Amino acid sequence: MKGTVLLLFLFMTSILNAQSDSNVVLVIHGGAGTILKKNMTPEKEKAYKAKLEEALNAGYEVLKNNGSSVDAVQAAINIMEDSPLFNAGKGAVYTNKETQEMDASIMRGNDKNAGAVAGVQTIKNPINAARAVMEKSEHVLLTADGAEEFAAKCELEIVDTSYFRSDVRLRQLKRVQEKEKTVLDHDGDQGEVDSSEDEFNIDYIEDKKFGTVGAVALDQNGDLAAGTSTGGMTNKRYNRIGDSPIIGAGTYADNQTCGVSCTGHGEYFIRNVVAYDVSAIMNYKGVSLDTAANEVIDKQTEFGGTGGLIALDKDGNVAMPFNTAGMYRGYVKKDGSIYIGIYGEE
Amino acid sequence: MKGTVLLLFLFMTSILNAQSDSNVVLVIHGGAGTILKKNMTPEKEKAYKAKLEEALNAGYEVLKNNGSSVDAVQAAINIMEDSPLFNAGKGAVYTNKETQEMDASIMRGNDKNAGAVAGVQTIKNPINAARAVMEKSEHVLLTADGAEEFAAKCELEIVDTSYFRSDVRLRQLKRVQEKEKTVLDHDGDQGEVDSSEDEFNIDYIEDKKFGTVGAVALDQNGDLAAGTSTGGMTNKRYNRIGDSPIIGAGTYADNQTCGVSCTGHGEYFIRNVVAYDVSAIMNYKGVSLDTAANEVIDKQTEFGGTGGLIALDKDGNVAMPFNTAGMYRGYVKKDGSIYIGIYGEE
Repeated sequence: MKGTVLLLFLFMTSILNAQSDSNVVLVIHGGAGTILKKNMTPEKEKAYKAKLEEALNAGYEVLKNNGSSVDAVQAAINIMEDSPLFNAGKGAVYTNKETQEMDASIMRGNDKNAGAVAGVQTIKNPINAARAVMEKSEHVLLTADGAEEFAAKCELEIVDTSYFRSDVRLRQLKRVQEKEKTVLDHDGDQGEVDSSEDEFNIDYIEDKKFGTVGAVALDQNGDLAAGTSTGGMTNKRYNRIGDSPIIGAGTYADNQTCGVSCTGHGEYFIRNVVAYDVSAIMNYKGVSLDTAANEVIDKQTEFGGTGGLIALDKDGNVAMPFNTAGMYRGYVKKDGSIYIGIYGEE
Repeated sequence: MKGTVLLLFLFMTSILNAQSDSNVVLVIHGGAGTILKKNMTPEKEKAYKAKLEEALNAGYEVLKNNGSSVDAVQAAINIMEDSPLFNAGKGAVYTNKETQEMDASIMRGNDKNAGAVAGVQTIKNPINAARAVMEKSEHVLLTADGAEEFAAKCELEIVDTSYFRSDVRLRQLKRVQEKEKTVLDHDGDQGEVDSSEDEFNIDYIEDKKFGTVGAVALDQNGDLAAGTSTGGMTNKRYNRIGDSPIIGAGTYADNQTCGVSCTGHGEYFIRNVVAYDVSAIMNYKGVSLDTAANEVIDKQTEFGGTGGLIALDKDGNVAMPFNTAGMYRGYVKKDGSIYIGIYGEE
């Protein structure tokens, strides 16, 4: 009897807590790179901010209604995948073969289960396929045709490859190819270009390696989740895979520490195991999320790896360090306040 | 002048050190799993030990002659890839589609450069392709046809897929498929079977997830390198990729800490970023290689991830923890002494 009363008390307390204390946080990114105010028009800036806000609202709506952090991450990323503004899903960049090969991964912090897909060409929302791998298979990483076959079995939305084609991204490919023909050092910065030619001007970001999207959420159960989705690198060859579908490199989540999603020059993020490194530093050195996240990006800067990350810890603290000129980013904090940023100093 | 004399002195000292102090170490594994003495015949045991010794000698020969740790890792792994005894190269297991899809990765500790291939079907020695990716591309991970195209351009040896076919491995596939038909819980242990039917008896290891090979070396320059090569999981579907080609999960090397190569249930090794975790624990907690490596495998045991790893630090210390019944393993230490082990207690 005593036990039942205690259980009832705990149950009521937990319900009251859940209702009164909206302890949820969502943080997102839409890629880091040479994003400079001087290359922006007010229209472009407005379009990006509106889409980031839409993604934040979609994810936050899930969290407010007691949805899971996995649902929130997926909802936020789906908005960005469905937009041509970002290098993921609909806006994925072109490979050397004028196709799109997309990668995505997701991880949840309560049991550290994870799922990922790489090199998929017909799945409308790759993050949904990553989630299906996590929840409906014993595997973590499925690739290419096999991943598509699995996604189809899971009844995810499959689209014709033409869905991902766009003139803007194709012109971006041609410019990168032209540049690579004339530049011996393929690793060099692509610099800035005037791209006023394009109606929507989304490709003034000449960095061929950037534009990945990601989200990290903390739900009312205190569960963290992180996800990342990308079209990879413009003009990529040889079925190259970057950090986005690699658990530990592009995505990581552990309720004991934090959730992380990265964006940047994937090869460097793989070599330094960036997403997990934030968690490891917090865990083993006992420092704050902010200290750990900044240490990791400082290490990347020293290493020559450009990019950034978003991170969220179990207490709802947010960090969004990057070593590029800008990073599309935003968050909704516990108190419901929204922040959206694009450039370096805001 | 003073400077020149000092430089000359340092140069001579370094040459003398290199010649007098053979500071090199090589450690290898040929997979972890349900390897029990009672299932072994003296012939089988002899065959495995002889092949492990051959691999150790091949790598040690490179190191003794002032070769690089990368060369040594490749030489040792090539011996195991070319043998039908191990689940890598020639002995790679069958996928659900009765093909072989092989993965490999390599990383060097001096600049933390890395290369990997996944899902390749025609490259005789996948570790050589991983090395070519590291040295001849700006990428880290190439997959499937693209990786094969790249390997061919690098003039690596390409073979017909029939090279990887074997009756023994095909029977292993059929048994796993039969078992999966009758067992609902695909994650359960496969138990032990009597496989005296097979002449060479290599498939008494019924664990469908094991048999990966790997090597870690320390050369006379003090440079570490680590590599891993595998056929993956018997009966794998959907172009599944495990931990072996994932830098951070299956392979890691950093001159400041250690080199690591893993073997085991890949999905668990990916989720816990096992190879990098050994390095992170050493680095951030300031503990020894042995302490870090054992902490990581203890964590895997608690997590439910079966397998093992080999690790080697910059001072030549070796650790080879595993939580399975056995792991094919061996090392040559600084003083030239060779150790070869198979079971748990030796």
